[in-house]
Amino acid sequence: MKLQIALDLENIRSAKNIIADLKDIVDIVEIGTPLIIKEGVKVIRIIRKEFPFLTILADLKIIDGGKYESKLAFEAGADIVTVLGIANNATIKVAIVESKKYKKHVMVDMMRVKNIEQRVLEIKKLGVKYICIHTPVDIQSSGDNPLIELKRVKSVLNDVKIAVAGGINLHTIKDIVRENPEIIIVGSGITKQKNKRKTALQIKEIINNYERM
Amino acid sequence: MKLQIALDLENIRSAKNIIADLKDIVDIVEIGTPLIIKEGVKVIRIIRKEFPFLTILADLKIIDGGKYESKLAFEAGADIVTVLGIANNATIKVAIVESKKYKKHVMVDMMRVKNIEQRVLEIKKLGVKYICIHTPVDIQSSGDNPLIELKRVKSVLNDVKIAVAGGINLHTIKDIVRENPEIIIVGSGITKQKNKRKTALQIKEIINNYERM
Repeated sequence: MKLQIALDLENIRSAKNIIADLKDIVDIVEIGTPLIIKEGVKVIRIIRKEFPFLTILADLKIIDGGKYESKLAFEAGADIVTVLGIANNATIKVAIVESKKYKKHVMVDMMRVKNIEQRVLEIKKLGVKYICIHTPVDIQSSGDNPLIELKRVKSVLNDVKIAVAGGINLHTIKDIVRENPEIIIVGSGITKQKNKRKTALQIKEIINNYERM
Repeated sequence: MKLQIALDLENIRSAKNIIADLKDIVDIVEIGTPLIIKEGVKVIRIIRKEFPFLTILADLKIIDGGKYESKLAFEAGADIVTVLGIANNATIKVAIVESKKYKKHVMVDMMRVKNIEQRVLEIKKLGVKYICIHTPVDIQSSGDNPLIELKRVKSVLNDVKIAVAGGINLHTIKDIVRENPEIIIVGSGITKQKNKRKTALQIKEIINNYERM
């Protein structure tokens, strides 16, 4: 299992500081949607330059313009770009074609997809590398979490790498880890904690403990 | 009917040039999703400063983080911010609350919504000012256009302002104009033409001719 840190509410400087603090603990750094809205792909370019060996995911959540938008992020140095699962297949396909030109990857974010089991099978056929099960932050306060959808997707898919996101923190991660997804994405569960490094290490330890079992 | 020009594939300089060229013809300038990805909200701030009286729409296509993401655009000077109709109601609601703080507006983009008649009625109840019927660019080559959905939405909604987008140009606009939407959005139908100003004037004349009927 890999740990992905989502940087959403940061600016370029605080993002760089967090990465510098956590780069030996996390496996993937996500440049979150709001951070890209705030700074543009420049933030990817700067982080790529400062941390050349980092795996960078650009959370563009593309729903249209799959070729052009994914290209903006790949050119800036992203390794993985997200496209929405509710997008047309045409959009996902052109983003995958673009990713291959850069020897990079697409992650399809299943946020707001209704028939998730059926849709992941369709998306799998398009040749995507990663699927992300993702509970929107705006409904997390109502108690929603990605665990149920993760189980549903796992029941039909076992050869696509699954990422999981949405309100995951030190307390909720244990149930997620048991499902053994490829990537666990944590945002405010680390970035809003007083001691980010300590929290990231604790989360990493939970993951490692499971993997050693 | 208002004419909205969508600036998608531009950079800050070419966007400014196009706006300077067309600002007496168009009613709303859209900072398109890829332009925001490329430049961040800085592009909104720069255009707001250079054209203080312009109506600016920021096409963020928000699907989550409705409060924070819309705030980024409103603070930068946007008058209208787009949220996806496939987002949770919670996301649309918090974006509307945020827009009111700035005395600004939300447009809900119906791209990829399935039961569009039912969903526009739900969204209307949330108190949104604009609904946008929008055919993705990635499927326009298959002949899809927004006319049918526009008619479907008009059949159930007549007191919310409707915008319409997706491959509209000098040739296809006539059928759209007949449906009398509040806002007609044209992107490459103007921006990819040799003489943008002449094309915009021709489009404006078609709109004006209809309104004088």
